[in-house]
Amino acid sequence: MLIPKGFRFAVAAAEFRKAGRNDLAVLYSTVPAVAAGVFTTNLFKAAPVLVAQENLAASRSMRAIVVNAGQANACTGEEGVVNCKVSLELAAEALGVQPAEMLPASTGVIGVHLLMDKWREAMPQIARSLGQTSALEAATAIMTTDSFPKLASARMAAEGGGEVRVLGMCKGAGMICPNMATMLGFILTDADVDPDLWQEIVAGCAAESFNRVTVDGDTSTNDCVIGLANGRSEVKVTRADMAPLVAAVDQVCQALAYMLVQDAEGGTKVARIEVQGAADAKDAELAARAVGNSPLVKTALFGRDPNWGRIAAALGRSGAAFDPDQVRIAIGGQVIFEHGLPRPGDLRALLGSALRRQDIPIDISLGTGEGAYVLLASDLTYDYVKINAEYTT
Amino acid sequence: MLIPKGFRFAVAAAEFRKAGRNDLAVLYSTVPAVAAGVFTTNLFKAAPVLVAQENLAASRSMRAIVVNAGQANACTGEEGVVNCKVSLELAAEALGVQPAEMLPASTGVIGVHLLMDKWREAMPQIARSLGQTSALEAATAIMTTDSFPKLASARMAAEGGGEVRVLGMCKGAGMICPNMATMLGFILTDADVDPDLWQEIVAGCAAESFNRVTVDGDTSTNDCVIGLANGRSEVKVTRADMAPLVAAVDQVCQALAYMLVQDAEGGTKVARIEVQGAADAKDAELAARAVGNSPLVKTALFGRDPNWGRIAAALGRSGAAFDPDQVRIAIGGQVIFEHGLPRPGDLRALLGSALRRQDIPIDISLGTGEGAYVLLASDLTYDYVKINAEYTT
Repeated sequence: MLIPKGFRFAVAAAEFRKAGRNDLAVLYSTVPAVAAGVFTTNLFKAAPVLVAQENLAASRSMRAIVVNAGQANACTGEEGVVNCKVSLELAAEALGVQPAEMLPASTGVIGVHLLMDKWREAMPQIARSLGQTSALEAATAIMTTDSFPKLASARMAAEGGGEVRVLGMCKGAGMICPNMATMLGFILTDADVDPDLWQEIVAGCAAESFNRVTVDGDTSTNDCVIGLANGRSEVKVTRADMAPLVAAVDQVCQALAYMLVQDAEGGTKVARIEVQGAADAKDAELAARAVGNSPLVKTALFGRDPNWGRIAAALGRSGAAFDPDQVRIAIGGQVIFEHGLPRPGDLRALLGSALRRQDIPIDISLGTGEGAYVLLASDLTYDYVKINAEYTT
Repeated sequence: MLIPKGFRFAVAAAEFRKAGRNDLAVLYSTVPAVAAGVFTTNLFKAAPVLVAQENLAASRSMRAIVVNAGQANACTGEEGVVNCKVSLELAAEALGVQPAEMLPASTGVIGVHLLMDKWREAMPQIARSLGQTSALEAATAIMTTDSFPKLASARMAAEGGGEVRVLGMCKGAGMICPNMATMLGFILTDADVDPDLWQEIVAGCAAESFNRVTVDGDTSTNDCVIGLANGRSEVKVTRADMAPLVAAVDQVCQALAYMLVQDAEGGTKVARIEVQGAADAKDAELAARAVGNSPLVKTALFGRDPNWGRIAAALGRSGAAFDPDQVRIAIGGQVIFEHGLPRPGDLRALLGSALRRQDIPIDISLGTGEGAYVLLASDLTYDYVKINAEYTT
C-alpha cells in the first residue's frame, strides 16, 4: 500500500457499539491539505454531512478527517449538530489542530446520538496512536457490516521527476442506508493541487465510480467522499497536466467502488452492466439502473439463471427510448437475445460456467444512438434479507 | 359471487406446463359486449398484447377473452403474433364466434412459443365446458405462481329499478415480470354503456387500483386489464349517471389489487403507504414509490422492525421536494418521527403488535402542500428470493 507523504492515521476502541474493536479513526495531514467533498443528495442529511459542508464552505484548508462507526448521527436534530461540533473540538485538542480544520463523517444507526462520554474517554488513545497506526487499521476501524477493509492506492510519476501517491479507503456495504451501512470514501494524496481543481477531480472521479454502483438503489443520509491533497510530494499539478493525477485518483476510486459491490450485504456476484447504443447518456443510465436495481434480475444472478427475459423486461420499463427489435443482450460475452428473439438452444448449458463466476458482464446494446453507461450491481440473496430483516439493536 | 347476466366461462386442462390442472380459460358473453383495455407500458409488448390492441382498434365489440397460463408468448417475434392469431381462430371455431371478436391474454415463461398442438387438442374441452364452468374455476385456471384465485364482485342498483353486476378476476403475483408472473385483470359487467365511457371507467379504475400496488417495481411484458360490458342487465349507464357504476368497478378493482399484494411472491405483509402534504400528486407518488419499492423498508416490514430511519432515508432520496423538519411518519397509527426527530422510547414495544399484523398502515405527511397518493406494497422475504432465484424450467 502506497502512503502519500505527510499523512498519518490514528484509531481508538471507543466502544461505540461493541467492545474489543476500533471504531474511531482519524486521517491526519502533517501540513494543511486542500480539501474537496461530495455529499449525499438525500434531503435528510446527517449532522456530520451538514457540519462538513459548513466547514468546507468556510475554508478549503483542512488537517484531518474524523470518522466514527456505530452512530450515524442522522435525524438527530440540532443536538446532533452540536454533538458533532463538540466531537471535532475534542479531537482537535487531542491532535493539536483547530476544529475548523477538521471534517467529520459518521456511520451507524440512524436517529441515535453520538456517545459524548465515550468520545472524551477515547481521546488519549487517539493522541497516543497518531502515527503509530497503519492505513489498514484505520480502514478497519470505520467498518460496520463490511466484511473486509477497503483500501486502494496508485502512483503517478511526475514529468520533471518526483512521484505523487494517491491512497483511498472506503466503507460499504453499498450505496445503501440501512441502520448500519453508509458509503464513506476518503481519498488522500500528496499532490500539490489548487482547491477548485481538486474539487473537480474528486467530484468527477466519484461520479464515474462510487455513483455507478448499486446494491439496492437506496442512498444514505451520510454518504460522502472527501479528498485531502497536502502537496507534500512537491509535485504541482495544474489543469494543463492534470491527466495523470486524474488517472491515479480514478484508478483508486474504481478499485474501491468494485470492492463496495463485492462486499455488498449478502452479495455473491458483481454484475458489470454496460449499456451502449442508447439515445443519450441519460437513457443509457436509466436502462442500466433499471436492470441493476431489478430484484428479479438480482435474484436470477444469485440463482445463476440465464434469465434474459427479466433483463429485457427491465429495459422495456426503464423509460429509455428504443426499438425492441434492435436490442442485443449478451451475458458473459455470449449474445443471448437479438432481433427480438432469444438465442436458440440450452442457455443454461451455454452460460453455466460464466454464471458461476463472481464477475458477470452483462452487455446491452439498444441500437439507437451513442449513449453509454456502466453500472456495477450486486445480486439479491437470502443473506441480504437476513441481514436487513433480522437486524436488531 | 355475483355473476353479471349473459356471461359464461369455459376451461381446459391443455397441459401447457403441468398435467392435471386447468390452464386455459375463456370468459364469454352470450351477446356482443363493449370492450375496453389497459395494457402494459413495457416496450417489449407480448404478442397477445399486440393482438388485443389490434383487435380493439378495429372493433370495440367483443364476445370473449381467451387466457392461457404457461407460455407468456413474449419476445417471440412475428411467429408469436401468428400463433396468437391462430389460437384465437381455434377458440372462435370452438365457441361459434369470429376471431376478430376475441381478445387474447397470456401469462407464463417469456421467450417460449404457444404450444399449438396442445391448443388444438384442448378445443373440444373448451366447447364442452362452456357454461358448465364457474367463475372460480376460470380464475383458478389462469394462476401461475399465485397461491389463491382472485375474484371480486359488486352490484349497483339502478335508479329506475334493475341491477348492474360487476365481476372481476385477476392473477398476480404482483406488477411483476419474472418467468411466471404477470398481472392480468378482467372486469365483466352487464351494464349497458357506450365504448368511450366504458374505456374511461376501466382505465380510471385500473389507474386507481392495479397501478397503485407494487411487489418489486417491475412491470410485465404481458400486463393487461380488459373490461367487457354486455348490456344484458338492460340498465343504461350514461356519463350523467355513471357514479354508481364507477363505484362498483372501483370496489372490484380495489379488492383485486389488495389480493395481488396479499399474494405477492413470498409476501407476508400488505403495507398501505399513504403520502399526504406533498407539493403535488406527482411528488406524493414519487415519495410513496420510493418507500414501497425500497428493499430496506421491505425487509424491515418482513422483520417487524419499526425502522423509521429507512422510511425517512427513502423519502429523502425520492426526488419529492420537502423540508425534512416538516415530515411526519406514523406506523400503525403511531407517530414515530416528527420535527426532524424520532419519538423517544422503545419503538419495538410500542409497535410490536401493529407490526405482527398482516396489514401495516404507513402514513406520511410531507408538510408541504396538498398532494396525496396511496400505494399498496408487499414485503421482501426469504421466499421472494427463493421463488425467483431457484426457479428452474
